[in-house]
Amino acid sequence: MDNLFGEFLGTAILVIFGCGVVADVCLKGSKGENSGWIVITAGWGFAVMLGVFTATSLGAPQGDLNPAVTLAKAMNGVYTPTQAVATMVSQLIGGIVGAIVVYLAYLPHWEATEDKASKLGVFSTIPAIRSYASNFLCEAIGTFLLVLMIFAMFHANNGKFPAGVGPYLVGVLIWALGLSIGGPTGYAISPARDLGPRIAHAILPIAGKGTSDWAYSWVPVVGPMVGGAVAYIFAKLVGII
Amino acid sequence: MDNLFGEFLGTAILVIFGCGVVADVCLKGSKGENSGWIVITAGWGFAVMLGVFTATSLGAPQGDLNPAVTLAKAMNGVYTPTQAVATMVSQLIGGIVGAIVVYLAYLPHWEATEDKASKLGVFSTIPAIRSYASNFLCEAIGTFLLVLMIFAMFHANNGKFPAGVGPYLVGVLIWALGLSIGGPTGYAISPARDLGPRIAHAILPIAGKGTSDWAYSWVPVVGPMVGGAVAYIFAKLVGII
Amino acid sequence: MDNLFGEFLGTAILVIFGCGVVADVCLKGSKGENSGWIVITAGWGFAVMLGVFTATSLGAPQGDLNPAVTLAKAMNGVYTPTQAVATMVSQLIGGIVGAIVVYLAYLPHWEATEDKASKLGVFSTIPAIRSYASNFLCEAIGTFLLVLMIFAMFHANNGKFPAGVGPYLVGVLIWALGLSIGGPTGYAISPARDLGPRIAHAILPIAGKGTSDWAYSWVPVVGPMVGGAVAYIFAKLVGII
Amino acid sequence: MDNLFGEFLGTAILVIFGCGVVADVCLKGSKGENSGWIVITAGWGFAVMLGVFTATSLGAPQGDLNPAVTLAKAMNGVYTPTQAVATMVSQLIGGIVGAIVVYLAYLPHWEATEDKASKLGVFSTIPAIRSYASNFLCEAIGTFLLVLMIFAMFHANNGKFPAGVGPYLVGVLIWALGLSIGGPTGYAISPARDLGPRIAHAILPIAGKGTSDWAYSWVPVVGPMVGGAVAYIFAKLVGII
Repeated sequence: MDNLFGEFLGTAILVIFGCGVVADVCLKGSKGENSGWIVITAGWGFAVMLGVFTATSLGAPQGDLNPAVTLAKAMNGVYTPTQAVATMVSQLIGGIVGAIVVYLAYLPHWEATEDKASKLGVFSTIPAIRSYASNFLCEAIGTFLLVLMIFAMFHANNGKFPAGVGPYLVGVLIWALGLSIGGPTGYAISPARDLGPRIAHAILPIAGKGTSDWAYSWVPVVGPMVGGAVAYIFAKLVGII
Repeated sequence: MDNLFGEFLGTAILVIFGCGVVADVCLKGSKGENSGWIVITAGWGFAVMLGVFTATSLGAPQGDLNPAVTLAKAMNGVYTPTQAVATMVSQLIGGIVGAIVVYLAYLPHWEATEDKASKLGVFSTIPAIRSYASNFLCEAIGTFLLVLMIFAMFHANNGKFPAGVGPYLVGVLIWALGLSIGGPTGYAISPARDLGPRIAHAILPIAGKGTSDWAYSWVPVVGPMVGGAVAYIFAKLVGII
Repeated sequence: MDNLFGEFLGTAILVIFGCGVVADVCLKGSKGENSGWIVITAGWGFAVMLGVFTATSLGAPQGDLNPAVTLAKAMNGVYTPTQAVATMVSQLIGGIVGAIVVYLAYLPHWEATEDKASKLGVFSTIPAIRSYASNFLCEAIGTFLLVLMIFAMFHANNGKFPAGVGPYLVGVLIWALGLSIGGPTGYAISPARDLGPRIAHAILPIAGKGTSDWAYSWVPVVGPMVGGAVAYIFAKLVGII
Repeated sequence: MDNLFGEFLGTAILVIFGCGVVADVCLKGSKGENSGWIVITAGWGFAVMLGVFTATSLGAPQGDLNPAVTLAKAMNGVYTPTQAVATMVSQLIGGIVGAIVVYLAYLPHWEATEDKASKLGVFSTIPAIRSYASNFLCEAIGTFLLVLMIFAMFHANNGKFPAGVGPYLVGVLIWALGLSIGGPTGYAISPARDLGPRIAHAILPIAGKGTSDWAYSWVPVVGPMVGGAVAYIFAKLVGII
């Protein structure tokens, strides 16, 4: 139960800070309006760092915050199937709750923002060029890299990080993924981070909101799961795990 | 007394670097004019890191630098009510003194800057869209996150940080808060950081200054205090403290 | 063999993240389009950090990821000539493979991008002002600094870095090199990072691609090798190694 | 002698990376042209970190790289007057040599750049609004903060930093100083960093260069020395040293 609550609250924190930075950059009148990609990518990196600290403070031993990471670790024997599914559901609910907090924090800015895509973009990813196959491939590659890098960084050969350093370096990893692989799809690289806020977008009374773009919603869910699974297989094959 | 002087000087340093970066970005002719949100948020993050190092070097055991943090810790039994109030007053005076130093460092730029709001904005926060209830909610949410994250990061489950790492990560936390929650109100998330400089704005002979916007001044005082108190209750409830 | 595979995969990761960030900034329609130099330099810095973690997780003791670094270390007795050449070849192949992954991740953006130089620039460096002698000098100076700083940072006088800190600081070093010395040539400072992706550019079916600019290709190969060798001699002379 | 050579080479490295980032941002056609204040301030921060690693790798125990820091430490009994002066001269020569390397690395860009102030600005600081008294005050305040923060951060109360963390945090401190106090004068906060490169500007055959602005040259020399001395007195008074 510590694990489930930790994964829930950690993912909520991750999404508050992560979707929060997109709100800051994309909503009309915000102090950070149009402040660019360095702001978004740094914000998401720090968001994951803070989510990890939250989860582990609550006794969640892994602090995955991402069903694709949990899947790869389940394949590696860290979770039973039941534990894995419960963990993923906790992460998804955390994603919904986190997005609701962002909605509240930016309350006056929804009506001020005319563009419907900007408002959806605070919650869920929207591909730069819509092409389901290519977008799927990009999300799978991004999540493959995420999971492979987590396995590589925390490999025993790299030593045992001092307290605080692990979550910080995970944050830098997410920052790097945004900078380098985020261009085509906005790097969901996690079903919980994309589907959770998309559900929140669908149910929240956002002023002048448009569609929740359900046609695309499977890409940032299935792409990351496939990428995570392939990363496990690859890491096993080459001996990183 | 070590604690009070440390909290005073630490908050002064925090405000020198914090209000300093806003001066750099917002005042006319400055080298950093219009250099954007990444500059402001990084500057405030590092400001808090340096304030913490200052306070703790002087023997202030906590290095709160923020009455909302002190309130939450007082509720947790770290301070007696008298100690808490004395700490808060020290922080507020530090905020006033820090703002005076910024005024002096940017001396030729006050007359060069025509816009009165830009000049006030160096000292105190100004909401992006004025709506007291929503602005209050945003400040409360931001400070709730600040206090909750401090409790989470420094929880025993996250280990004992090596020297230097704690203040650095607190700086990254503040950077993250600015990036993600700073959009609607400019993230005062501390009465000392907002009210102290606002008092300085009111008394300093700033060339062509406008009103100190006292009508808004209660929001970045009461909002953070409420957010900090709620964070204590929530952290206690879920077992982070 | 661990060393060769580690150098191969580490360099591939380095190039995925490194050339990836250039794709993000330079390709049409990308989320990070025109997001500037801070994005490119931070992305390359983190790329090298992740490459090092990858290489060392696989048991590659050095994690050079760069023939110029390997050359300097070979001169210092770390490698036999045969080992050095095999290491360099592994790095070069890693560079080719990494560039292919970037091509796949950004698949819809090649046709969307008209400018041929932008597309080549994702793979290989292009000088700001073409002048072979000056460009050669700049690449040699940049790589001289890279190798000298690696020797200096990891000198015993600076202590033994805790786990994770070494690769992070190498990342910051690369970030710094980009910020400060990257202006004239785009800082290849590694034959594997430049020649590998250039080969990929030549063989990949990139929509509307132009020349691979082979006339310039020797500069970011020979310049770094000379700079690395001179750095070894200088470091030996002044006693840093 | 180790100390003197370390201070010389460390300051040279500091100036190569520091003046290098200004060249990248300010010279015509450079890859980093107009990339802004975040680039300049991060570049200078990392420059100092790398300079410190260089100096300490060579056995220079302090790694001051700045006559104002050396002055404050001499007042604190770390150096005899003769040692202090020799250290300062080494730093100054390092500043000259470092600036020459930047000149060489950016060779094709001097002729491409028409604006004479942009070219001088690569070497020495130029005030945003010329006002000797205010500029002096700003340089003194900035250096006061630099020295005070060094004393505070490395105070025994803050613990003994693990290897690598000290130089990194000094880099973050310099980054912060640029962000927050750099606006009015471009934060020389060191005679060696300003006067050394100014001498290089005067003697180098820079295409189409203008005056070396000797009228202003005393401000970034005397201001920092006074700021450093006052910081020593203040730190002693309040018990940080």
